[in-house]
Amino acid sequence: MSKILVFGHKNPDTDAITSAIAYAYYLEQKGEEAEAVALGEVNEETQFALDKFGYQAPRVVDKVANETDTVALVDHNEAQQSVDDRDLVSIHSVVDHHRIANFETADPIFYLARPYGCSQTIIYSLFQEADIAIPENLAGLMLSAIISDTLLFKSPTTTAADEKVGQALAEIAGVDLQAYGLELLKSGTNVADKSAEEIADGDAKSFEMGNHTIRIGQINVVEVSDVLDRKEEILAEMQRLSVDNDYEAFLLIVTNILSNDSEGLVVGKEDLVPAFQTAFNGQVTDKQIALPGVVSRKKQVVPSLTTEIESL
Amino acid sequence: MSKILVFGHKNPDTDAITSAIAYAYYLEQKGEEAEAVALGEVNEETQFALDKFGYQAPRVVDKVANETDTVALVDHNEAQQSVDDRDLVSIHSVVDHHRIANFETADPIFYLARPYGCSQTIIYSLFQEADIAIPENLAGLMLSAIISDTLLFKSPTTTAADEKVGQALAEIAGVDLQAYGLELLKSGTNVADKSAEEIADGDAKSFEMGNHTIRIGQINVVEVSDVLDRKEEILAEMQRLSVDNDYEAFLLIVTNILSNDSEGLVVGKEDLVPAFQTAFNGQVTDKQIALPGVVSRKKQVVPSLTTEIESL
Repeated sequence: MSKILVFGHKNPDTDAITSAIAYAYYLEQKGEEAEAVALGEVNEETQFALDKFGYQAPRVVDKVANETDTVALVDHNEAQQSVDDRDLVSIHSVVDHHRIANFETADPIFYLARPYGCSQTIIYSLFQEADIAIPENLAGLMLSAIISDTLLFKSPTTTAADEKVGQALAEIAGVDLQAYGLELLKSGTNVADKSAEEIADGDAKSFEMGNHTIRIGQINVVEVSDVLDRKEEILAEMQRLSVDNDYEAFLLIVTNILSNDSEGLVVGKEDLVPAFQTAFNGQVTDKQIALPGVVSRKKQVVPSLTTEIESL
Repeated sequence: MSKILVFGHKNPDTDAITSAIAYAYYLEQKGEEAEAVALGEVNEETQFALDKFGYQAPRVVDKVANETDTVALVDHNEAQQSVDDRDLVSIHSVVDHHRIANFETADPIFYLARPYGCSQTIIYSLFQEADIAIPENLAGLMLSAIISDTLLFKSPTTTAADEKVGQALAEIAGVDLQAYGLELLKSGTNVADKSAEEIADGDAKSFEMGNHTIRIGQINVVEVSDVLDRKEEILAEMQRLSVDNDYEAFLLIVTNILSNDSEGLVVGKEDLVPAFQTAFNGQVTDKQIALPGVVSRKKQVVPSLTTEIESL
């Protein structure tokens, strides 16, 4: 077996990047040779966390079979969110907190999923079980992912385990959870310097729902108008991306991290629109739909949209 | 949420039955309402273990949505090995030691798979983590599954964890591991009273390999001739089952639990035969192929056969 390459999903967010770093460190402590890599460039929020705790961004790869025969997945499992040549390598293990779909192995493997708010909360439990100490700077990095994924414990995906582990990690890292948390979340909200493509697609993932490919992006802001002022430009970009990549619909969730509400922008096939309206109990008007109280793509968007699109 | 029904795979073996009992007990200790059920009648070996440790066989169900909205799976995950109406209920959790395939959820769940020889070895670790004591009779039942799945630690699926947990459970249960182990394994080898269908299909599972449905059964004996003396009758039954259920091939692995070798009986489409010969590096002669050193369907049969059939 060659070195295990560890990575999170495409369009990596803070959990995808830092969970790869934490799990690769864990595997090395367990005697494996492992390296964290990334399936894309880090975003501003993640760079802020890496800088704060003295880490380099993992190197970006777009295939793996040319350099290893074994990989480990964190923070994802679905094939279309993973490395393109995954079929050519063995999967050593998976640590994830998402639904399981489009995932298959030929052999039994270690697979640990828990319905927690963040992959790092699960990885923390692996460190605990194996009695491996978490270095101060790694604790800070792991904490950053929990803050990011749970919107500082405001998202409905947050569990008691996330809060408990977040507090433990803040203590190890020696940071003020609330103050650092808000600082971290705000670091990712500057959209002025972002292109329309970065806004729409920077954090987007593809989902297979009843034979339809649906793209769902999300962006955090402190003022929804920062994005909506550029609505036409962003919708045009979502349309272009849909045509180029055969997405049948593209939803961008614009989330206010202070009020914990969102607005949705939608482009796509006309016959899919009713599914969005039913799923979110609202009207799509001028390609926009209010998503009050919605902050979690995973918990408040994907399940209900999957149900509605599959029943079309 | 209604009561969680916990079950192993169809055609249940000792691990499927007893892991459902052990995991249901674990869930109850964690404050859930849970009941172990079975997707089929218990076999002789399992009945021997249940009698030895004072348990009743779980009631048999062929659907679940009529009585619950939530299930937990042990010792399997693939849809075709599970309850027929699984799509109508939510999956609370999965504890398994097989490859992952034909499995999908709408929401994040708890999924724990480890490449161990037996599901009970994983369930034991859950008891340990939660600091829940294992009652003496339950320990005996859990031990029985480990003995059964690992052929008393002789199968190549056996891991250090299985041996360690087996010894710990034998101590709790107060049984002599070697003596009880051989007694248990022999209890399942009486084929004289079994019909050809029970021999061929009693422990069989279906696998999807490259768009082909392949049925693979296994039977343990102390003399391979106990089965081979009835070869024509058994082949005819395998042929009948294949026609009735659209299996494109049916392999029966006849395993000598003392010598740890097997003979394979094969019926199926002619163009699939080469895949069997390549996978097992031998000749199919008179619908029979020698499988020296093969005792594990999961580790020594399914992966290589999957590879060969997919590359046809």
